[in-house]
Amino acid sequence: MKAVPALENLVECFRRLPGIGSRSAERMAMKLVRDTDNLLKELIDSLQKVREAVRCCSKCGCITSRGEEPCRLCTSAARDGSVLCVVEDPNDILVIERSGAFDGRYHALMGKLSPMRGEGPADLRIGALLRRIGAEGIEEVILALSTDVEGDATAAYLAERLRPTGARVSRLAYGMPAGSGVAYSDPVTLGRAIKGRQEA
Amino acid sequence: MKAVPALENLVECFRRLPGIGSRSAERMAMKLVRDTDNLLKELIDSLQKVREAVRCCSKCGCITSRGEEPCRLCTSAARDGSVLCVVEDPNDILVIERSGAFDGRYHALMGKLSPMRGEGPADLRIGALLRRIGAEGIEEVILALSTDVEGDATAAYLAERLRPTGARVSRLAYGMPAGSGVAYSDPVTLGRAIKGRQEA
Repeated sequence: MKAVPALENLVECFRRLPGIGSRSAERMAMKLVRDTDNLLKELIDSLQKVREAVRCCSKCGCITSRGEEPCRLCTSAARDGSVLCVVEDPNDILVIERSGAFDGRYHALMGKLSPMRGEGPADLRIGALLRRIGAEGIEEVILALSTDVEGDATAAYLAERLRPTGARVSRLAYGMPAGSGVAYSDPVTLGRAIKGRQEA
Repeated sequence: MKAVPALENLVECFRRLPGIGSRSAERMAMKLVRDTDNLLKELIDSLQKVREAVRCCSKCGCITSRGEEPCRLCTSAARDGSVLCVVEDPNDILVIERSGAFDGRYHALMGKLSPMRGEGPADLRIGALLRRIGAEGIEEVILALSTDVEGDATAAYLAERLRPTGARVSRLAYGMPAGSGVAYSDPVTLGRAIKGRQEA
């Protein structure tokens, strides 16, 4: 059939979102055209609200409302200002907050070192991180990065850069994920879990 | 972290799109907030254009531009008006058109019979289909439906409903997909391919 340009543009936009391929983008666009439950209008409205009202915190990089900068995580007096958790993306902050296992402050790098995608140290918020260490009197930096090659490289690089600050630098523990079993674990995870074994 | 309502609304909207789960919706929304390449604005613009300019053809259900109704597929004199291809979704029309293997007209049901999702005959464009058979002098109806249980049920139901019209009713051939091999075929497909074997 002849192309409908407005629809093709929409499919192209969807394809630029993470994890969306051509087929998914087409199905999503098609659903919006058939639109039996006003989804198209609601989606436009909520995107516009996000555009107007949502920002990344200039300090930690976390999602925040416009006008709430620095964000509540950065300003809350209830949180421990001496520990800084370094993550790749703002989304990671949400996930860690949901776990309830951390009550310090955050710093999102906005990526990780990735020669494949051409992302080097200059593309990450490393300068801002180093400035915060001194300015906020950070005593410990927890690197909560991916456990893949790029995450490992980023962690090694950051550990080196952070050494002169005198702050303690740690990384999340490697090991078995909860709700899993030996039979389902890959060799690398198992090897790390054995190496890092703890007294029962 | 405390919720940012505008962002949560957006995640909810994304989740209503086909094939998008909570995690994907969050990643998509997050990407738009970080928005380094103007994607948020472009997405809003293209959604608005779709809302203004794209419609489903009132006759066949295919995607068309506003003001082009019935669509070009329905009005083109070059196409065979005596054969009607019945599909589930407008998207299927696109896929069949890409194959170049059909030059008749189309009719999208906008779904299939699915007791599980509460979709019965009244939810499909079956009345409109029956009216078209008589009004347009359709001689053959090709049912190009899914080869799953629901598609089979829909085909059986339609064949029954179409019988009084006197039109020939056929279904797409079952068999091996192109570029595959016996070793990769499931038993049902193989059984159907053997049953429907053709002289070499």
